[in-house]
Amino acid sequence: MITLQTPLCDVLNIKYPIIQAGMAGGSTTVELIANVSNAGGLGSLGAAYMMPDDLRKTIRDIKQQTDRPFAVNLFCVEDIINTNERKHEQEIKEVLISLGKNLGIEEEHIQFQTPDLFNERFQVLIEEEVPVISTAFGILPVDKMKTAKKRKIKVISMVTTVKEAMIAERAGVHVIVAQGSDAGGHRSTFDIKEHPMGANIGTFSLIPQVVENVNIPVVAAGGVMNGRGLVAALALGAQGVQMGTKFLGSKESGIHPLYKKALFESTEEHTVITKNFSGRPARGIKNKFIEEFDRTGVHPLAYPIQNTATSDIRKEAFKQNQIEYMALWAGQGLRLIHHESHAEMIIKELMDEAEKILG
Amino acid sequence: MITLQTPLCDVLNIKYPIIQAGMAGGSTTVELIANVSNAGGLGSLGAAYMMPDDLRKTIRDIKQQTDRPFAVNLFCVEDIINTNERKHEQEIKEVLISLGKNLGIEEEHIQFQTPDLFNERFQVLIEEEVPVISTAFGILPVDKMKTAKKRKIKVISMVTTVKEAMIAERAGVHVIVAQGSDAGGHRSTFDIKEHPMGANIGTFSLIPQVVENVNIPVVAAGGVMNGRGLVAALALGAQGVQMGTKFLGSKESGIHPLYKKALFESTEEHTVITKNFSGRPARGIKNKFIEEFDRTGVHPLAYPIQNTATSDIRKEAFKQNQIEYMALWAGQGLRLIHHESHAEMIIKELMDEAEKILG
Repeated sequence: MITLQTPLCDVLNIKYPIIQAGMAGGSTTVELIANVSNAGGLGSLGAAYMMPDDLRKTIRDIKQQTDRPFAVNLFCVEDIINTNERKHEQEIKEVLISLGKNLGIEEEHIQFQTPDLFNERFQVLIEEEVPVISTAFGILPVDKMKTAKKRKIKVISMVTTVKEAMIAERAGVHVIVAQGSDAGGHRSTFDIKEHPMGANIGTFSLIPQVVENVNIPVVAAGGVMNGRGLVAALALGAQGVQMGTKFLGSKESGIHPLYKKALFESTEEHTVITKNFSGRPARGIKNKFIEEFDRTGVHPLAYPIQNTATSDIRKEAFKQNQIEYMALWAGQGLRLIHHESHAEMIIKELMDEAEKILG
Repeated sequence: MITLQTPLCDVLNIKYPIIQAGMAGGSTTVELIANVSNAGGLGSLGAAYMMPDDLRKTIRDIKQQTDRPFAVNLFCVEDIINTNERKHEQEIKEVLISLGKNLGIEEEHIQFQTPDLFNERFQVLIEEEVPVISTAFGILPVDKMKTAKKRKIKVISMVTTVKEAMIAERAGVHVIVAQGSDAGGHRSTFDIKEHPMGANIGTFSLIPQVVENVNIPVVAAGGVMNGRGLVAALALGAQGVQMGTKFLGSKESGIHPLYKKALFESTEEHTVITKNFSGRPARGIKNKFIEEFDRTGVHPLAYPIQNTATSDIRKEAFKQNQIEYMALWAGQGLRLIHHESHAEMIIKELMDEAEKILG
């Protein structure tokens, strides 16, 4: 029997088995997160690139707007930047200067230094007593996992293979998000040396294999857009779904209006997996930035250096309404988002449809 | 409500909404096809590379063993071999000679001439009155579609995008198989110039988008391995499933025993999409042939020339039990096949599990 009330709901203390993905870069506004949580799902703040003070303020703002649980998402990276990559910076700089010219960006704005604020961000989450911490790219280090669990914080890890799921389970996470290759945004693959473009297992194949190999709740991510997707995920053995692209199309999301328009107008054929924006593989709608960078034949730097180096181009593109130079993260289910909708409605319609399918 | 009795069963005159994929190259034995059809599914003969006389004999043999419907699968290719590719043959020849040395293959066995027997094969299907014709890579030409329909033959087309599904529907096919990127074997993408490595949309995302855009039955392919997969496919709007990899692991399949063993021992991380064997993108378990060909940096020739050029290596590999030089087509659900099983049992267990899930 498939039921919409799964143990996941108890673990996370939510009404519906729906997680709004913690997407970094400003798309997860306080309103989006609070409205998702108030509607019975789990809102998530994408905090990977946030400054600690801003992160603290945002968490407090969310708590002003909801007393329901929400998550804060961090990137856990152990990539080692080798010295060869450093030598490679000048080459990248030249490519970005040339691309940046279209937006009038000065050469000196291209930065490579990325301060590592992971410890500071984590400290804020502990001090502000966030209900849930979710991570991408890896699991919390042992000491931090211990700290989080001592504070009764629930921990979610996003994985892309069965092996990663088993690592996360052994490390003591409460919930696993299994991210299929259909998903938009960064591939959560732990070891980028082993899978340079991410371990890209389709959602349909990944879910039942992860479910069969771990004993904690598994959440399906990648291509879930509606009630059909929720029921299919549950049939495959998941206890819930995580949706990113669908919530990017919500009224509350903080993405650029042209980016939102592109979500409604693009099809399943328009996305590619690229390292050009951040140095880590991520799925987004193909645009000039991706194509022109590819054409140079230059390999992007490792994450987070490439991310820092391209950040000014992305910021300027946003200001200048230049969609061709933004990072348009999106999954493969694009034809299924038809129009902008309030987060609350997205959840309500999804649950109604799922109930109808299940009769 | 999800029901296991879908209109697809009426259209194809089968008991269960399960199609055994028409895999080329000898894996679809007469026993496999007949047993699948006798068990209530639709068996399919992979006839893409068969000689017309052999094809005729095989169809007659199948009819001896079942009076249920079955399909014969053909490749419909309109690729134009440009002259630059022809010049490129010497380069490929050198790579294959070097790879073939490990198997003791003589230089003169590497062939590039591929007779086009599509018309002859189609003629056999008409004369032998096969119940169903299924195609990959494209749709039947207009005149052949007309002939098939006049003879009351049902026509199935395998697609990888919504656009291709719409082309197939307009052309008059009865059923669409939507092949997600999770699937093993050849990507069925029509236009390889547009999508050189195939249009690789995950099964989970592809199915509901195709269903939303056509009005004929859609069958899900790619990652379906059990009852969970069938129910998930139905939840996504499909009316049935097509399974290839799962049936390769059946007792009746004609693949090499070492290949079968590899299916049981591999995981979701072991497959890649490669053009090295046939010139068209196809998903299989990574082995030395794929890796060593990649390492040369030489681009494979177009299909079917590359297929012909590598055929001796594959044949010798089979004879010599050299798994590293066979084409080990397989999808991404590999951890879900645990052991060899009779085709009849595969269907029975799948339907039992699906019924149990639906309560």
